[in-house]
Amino acid sequence: MRVDDLYSQRTKYFRTSEIRELLELSQRPDVISFAGGLPSPHAFPVEEIKEIVERVLSNDYATALQYGPTPGLKIFRETITEYVKNFGINADIDDVFITVGSQQALDIVGRVFIDAGDVIFVSLPTYLGAINAFYAYGANMVGVPLDEEGMRVDILEEKIKELKKKGEKLKLIYTVPTFQNPAGVELSEERRKHLLEIAAEHDLLIVEDEPYSMLRFEGEPIPSIKSMDKEGRVIYMGTFSKIMSPGFRLAYVVAEKSVARKMVVAKQSMDLCAPTFTQVIAKYYVENGYLTRRVEKIIEMYRKKRDIMLDAMDEYFPQECKWTKPRGGMFLWVELPEHINTVEMVQDAVKEKVAYVHGRAFHVDGGGTNAMRLNFTNPDDDVIEEGIKRLAKVIKTRM
Amino acid sequence: MRVDDLYSQRTKYFRTSEIRELLELSQRPDVISFAGGLPSPHAFPVEEIKEIVERVLSNDYATALQYGPTPGLKIFRETITEYVKNFGINADIDDVFITVGSQQALDIVGRVFIDAGDVIFVSLPTYLGAINAFYAYGANMVGVPLDEEGMRVDILEEKIKELKKKGEKLKLIYTVPTFQNPAGVELSEERRKHLLEIAAEHDLLIVEDEPYSMLRFEGEPIPSIKSMDKEGRVIYMGTFSKIMSPGFRLAYVVAEKSVARKMVVAKQSMDLCAPTFTQVIAKYYVENGYLTRRVEKIIEMYRKKRDIMLDAMDEYFPQECKWTKPRGGMFLWVELPEHINTVEMVQDAVKEKVAYVHGRAFHVDGGGTNAMRLNFTNPDDDVIEEGIKRLAKVIKTRM
Repeated sequence: MRVDDLYSQRTKYFRTSEIRELLELSQRPDVISFAGGLPSPHAFPVEEIKEIVERVLSNDYATALQYGPTPGLKIFRETITEYVKNFGINADIDDVFITVGSQQALDIVGRVFIDAGDVIFVSLPTYLGAINAFYAYGANMVGVPLDEEGMRVDILEEKIKELKKKGEKLKLIYTVPTFQNPAGVELSEERRKHLLEIAAEHDLLIVEDEPYSMLRFEGEPIPSIKSMDKEGRVIYMGTFSKIMSPGFRLAYVVAEKSVARKMVVAKQSMDLCAPTFTQVIAKYYVENGYLTRRVEKIIEMYRKKRDIMLDAMDEYFPQECKWTKPRGGMFLWVELPEHINTVEMVQDAVKEKVAYVHGRAFHVDGGGTNAMRLNFTNPDDDVIEEGIKRLAKVIKTRM
Repeated sequence: MRVDDLYSQRTKYFRTSEIRELLELSQRPDVISFAGGLPSPHAFPVEEIKEIVERVLSNDYATALQYGPTPGLKIFRETITEYVKNFGINADIDDVFITVGSQQALDIVGRVFIDAGDVIFVSLPTYLGAINAFYAYGANMVGVPLDEEGMRVDILEEKIKELKKKGEKLKLIYTVPTFQNPAGVELSEERRKHLLEIAAEHDLLIVEDEPYSMLRFEGEPIPSIKSMDKEGRVIYMGTFSKIMSPGFRLAYVVAEKSVARKMVVAKQSMDLCAPTFTQVIAKYYVENGYLTRRVEKIIEMYRKKRDIMLDAMDEYFPQECKWTKPRGGMFLWVELPEHINTVEMVQDAVKEKVAYVHGRAFHVDGGGTNAMRLNFTNPDDDVIEEGIKRLAKVIKTRM
């Protein structure tokens, strides 16, 4: 049958993740992979979940196994309104809804706000999943460089003015302020304030995506942008994927009531509700203090991995390379000399049985071709040094 | 802030489920509700899940708690390819992918196939969730009446020809062939064959949505449309919501490889993957024979509920009413005399502490205003008769 005639116009915006094949290659057992974006399996709260599930299936099964309301179970949304106080956010229960991972929250943002051609500002580099989500709606993503203090908000302001003059329809600014994926940097407090001012001046939304803010190895927390937001301009996203289990598919959005309601209406026709079973488990995980204790362990585990990686890079990487030294999160970012093409170098790396993601995957402007993202949380401690050694060899050979 | 200026054009297609408020009303503890579409909580395999979770968290936690591939875990898709043989379907693993409930599968169909104005054929009445999913993409839904043998395929054929002549873009036919929601009827084998012939002649897709096919109380199974499909024209959907737990949010699609691949690309930017935790549990639930034994119990439980409801209707309903006598599933459909408006009558019913869903909610043409859907699976056995008695009183008062 001629199915091609039946596809919708919007399928032209679909793109498979550019790193999909790479991730498959990197899963070969002899490859040391810094390519994925996965938590360590040793970070999962297995015993805690066992204990909670036993109780949930004895006492709460009629809720935990049944359909739930589209915004999420009330008892879990209440937990979230309490929990986000950790980030200085005062939310009403009607500001909060539950999604199937933050990726769904990004998709709903696209659905509710983006028409083809609308301008979305992202940093260079930015999170790959956001690129794919917004691109699926035909967004015109405009990149703004970042440095050690996050997005260059001054350059953002220039770009906004320039594009406004051209009559473009500007919609929102997307940011991962804390331990950004892929660069590992933090948006400074000053820039957060400035970002909010700019958004107010030009009447734009801010999407604040915060998967890593609990994974701080050192330094003082910086207030979330949402905590400074007096106008309901910030759509805040958090997730349980990095502090509990990505397999639970639980994230949440905090947004101004009317925006949250519109997003929930969209979600209703998309999947009715997030898994109630995992919502009930997550509720107890937070409320019984398991989360706090688990996060301490995860931080310790990941700080060590980061240190092993940074030490090995200091020892083995050529001095022409530069890299970020993240104070938390899961990733660091490496820049090689300009003439080294990391897209092409992937093949050499896989031959040497080591994997990374090339920087172009995180760029909306074709840039990043001499950069790479390294994940330090998933590989076991005892292979990180060897992996860096292999990668250093690959780079030196190219140079 | 003036957020209204920032919403996308497509939000004009969003509609809240017309029965949302009604469902909230019907949840008051003193109301006997035939309105929801919920399984009985007594149908949930609580002990089986307990046992499986214990094992999964001991042996498979590294998979069950981690991110999974977008099409679903390979081990679970293998289970599905075996399982769908029950419906005469020979699927390759690349034809199968896992979704967050069938609602997500419907949403992906909309995303991949529907441009605003495209014609989708549905029956009158049809499943409300499909109306909402397709409407969100601006579909032009054309209704085809049904009778005791399901959709009037002869009328469908006329409508196709008529709309083709007008130059409309026709895309697909949506059907719930077995124990249809809301009418409870089965599409006869002859009509299934005819439907496939018509789809082939006019080069349309068929979306075969089968949530209830395992819940057969009597009669011989009719082959699925997908089992007769030699051309890859049928997108088949099944779910674990009615035979395990809706709170697990697990459904699956079987479609021709290239179509499945396109739908998976769409899904990737929507939520990355379905819950891996529940996928692994469901895999063991199927493979260890728990599902087969549980389904036997559910059938027994639901058959009894249906019988109680039908007996009570025979006794209490005015003879001017007609209703379907489903051989399985979860719903039956009542038609009242034409002058009785069931939309208005909802208020009377809630006053009498009984709830139903009015027929208009399941119509794309404003029809169904003298009809209602009754769910017999969720209320406890001992309240069904009383609920029907109350409803009969409401109807008689209106008449």
